[in-house]
Amino acid sequence: MTHRLRALLLAALVATPVFAADPPATPAGVVAQAPSSAWQAIPAEDLLIMTIEGGKRIVIQLAPAFSPRHVANIRALAQAHWWDGTSINRVQDNYVVQWGDATEKKPMPPGLSPTSPDDYALSITNRRLAVTPLPYADAYAPTTGFVGGWPVAMDGSAAWLPHCYGYVGVGRNLSPDAGTGAELYTVIGQAPRQLDRNIAVVGRIIDGMSSLSSLPRGSGDLGFYTPQEHQVPILSLRLASDLPEAQRPHFQQMDVASPSFADYLRLRANRKDDFYDRPAGGVDLCNAPVPVRLTP
Amino acid sequence: MTHRLRALLLAALVATPVFAADPPATPAGVVAQAPSSAWQAIPAEDLLIMTIEGGKRIVIQLAPAFSPRHVANIRALAQAHWWDGTSINRVQDNYVVQWGDATEKKPMPPGLSPTSPDDYALSITNRRLAVTPLPYADAYAPTTGFVGGWPVAMDGSAAWLPHCYGYVGVGRNLSPDAGTGAELYTVIGQAPRQLDRNIAVVGRIIDGMSSLSSLPRGSGDLGFYTPQEHQVPILSLRLASDLPEAQRPHFQQMDVASPSFADYLRLRANRKDDFYDRPAGGVDLCNAPVPVRLTP
Repeated sequence: MTHRLRALLLAALVATPVFAADPPATPAGVVAQAPSSAWQAIPAEDLLIMTIEGGKRIVIQLAPAFSPRHVANIRALAQAHWWDGTSINRVQDNYVVQWGDATEKKPMPPGLSPTSPDDYALSITNRRLAVTPLPYADAYAPTTGFVGGWPVAMDGSAAWLPHCYGYVGVGRNLSPDAGTGAELYTVIGQAPRQLDRNIAVVGRIIDGMSSLSSLPRGSGDLGFYTPQEHQVPILSLRLASDLPEAQRPHFQQMDVASPSFADYLRLRANRKDDFYDRPAGGVDLCNAPVPVRLTP
Repeated sequence: MTHRLRALLLAALVATPVFAADPPATPAGVVAQAPSSAWQAIPAEDLLIMTIEGGKRIVIQLAPAFSPRHVANIRALAQAHWWDGTSINRVQDNYVVQWGDATEKKPMPPGLSPTSPDDYALSITNRRLAVTPLPYADAYAPTTGFVGGWPVAMDGSAAWLPHCYGYVGVGRNLSPDAGTGAELYTVIGQAPRQLDRNIAVVGRIIDGMSSLSSLPRGSGDLGFYTPQEHQVPILSLRLASDLPEAQRPHFQQMDVASPSFADYLRLRANRKDDFYDRPAGGVDLCNAPVPVRLTP
């Protein structure tokens, strides 16, 4: 592979400054040079480790601050080993990968919380959130920004997680059913923001996403695998906090209140390194993913 | 597969009205019921048929009205059978699949047009476009809409094609190089609109997208396949107009000036069928793909 081919598209993404004292010119440069103070540990009880056929590992970060009842159910289901032996049953191109119990007969563990459409957004009428604003227009919400490591869309009374690439939501039946959390999906295409506030968003995939996004698409209605196609077995799904310490993965997210994140956002919206002629002057909420890394 | 599982997410996408006289309640319903007058044939000289390993067929619709010089080159390259024996060399998750000559030594056919960054957008200073406006906010452009079957972003002086899912762009070296059209990529994730006006967009994939989007991701820098990974052979790439009539596929796109398209846009922005509780009241330019179908 020659330099030219590698350079063809977005070589500048991985460019580093000529002198260490230069401020980073790219979002990736900002992430690479961010000081340790710009990073926050993600708690082990917020990490789900899903292992699928072939031993491939997918790590999901839960968002208990936004979807507390669904997240409580998901933790209970993981602790009951409920997903072990279930499967990935649906892969619809430019939309979602969905997993759960294809038989729809597996009993639920006791003690799950009831859920309702009220759980799809956080009321902010009597609550002040520390928001890092994203000062660009959005087709789906009056304002957007970042809160506690997460992108949020907001109106005057509520804040909610958007359906961005890699975000995880809860399958449900027709309203007022809001899903238990047992049937999950993740977004593998353009952000289907029309689902925001119509479905619970409970987290995001922070490692192993390509093991889901590259699965064969299903040829049935809505991308469900047909009986002739291969449902992908889920071998296990565990909370990191339930694993022995030596087996736990450790991740950090960038502090959205840090100067590094401000630099990152500014450069995501204004690419002007060697590759770019014309900075956009804006960036979509789903096109400025909060940086996450393995703890060094 | 029971009804309930299929219903879990977006069952309403395929719902049909109870009575034929009911207006369609979903975008898919509008498309299914659109009269023949709402559809326009796509010219055979705008269709590229790419056949990859395993005989999988991908169909690309070219956009000569927006990128005439790059499209002329792409047609010349196809007519020279230039891509036959080249390969897909890069698959970067949530970004692009890229194909072309991995050796970077294959000679170009004679007569290609020179290209420049001026080719990335259409000047509209002295030109009136027939625009179907999309009246929702966009983070990247002052206005957006649809022109001649294509989504467009606009400012006061120019109109350009956005980098939406499945859209095809031209790889290039550092500016002022604008690429010949020989190195192509398509978007497989959240629309990377920061590339708009920094790269030529020349078309979109209208059939066979999942044969690209489900490819294994490359583990090299920027998703390039490493020497240990499998570059996917391109068996042939032809203009439909160069195929015998019996082998040509025939596609239609929805007329963006038709009442059907207006209904489609309204429902994409305001989902309020059985599945949805809360219409978004807006839709992103890349989340309202112009309907395309095989000619019935």
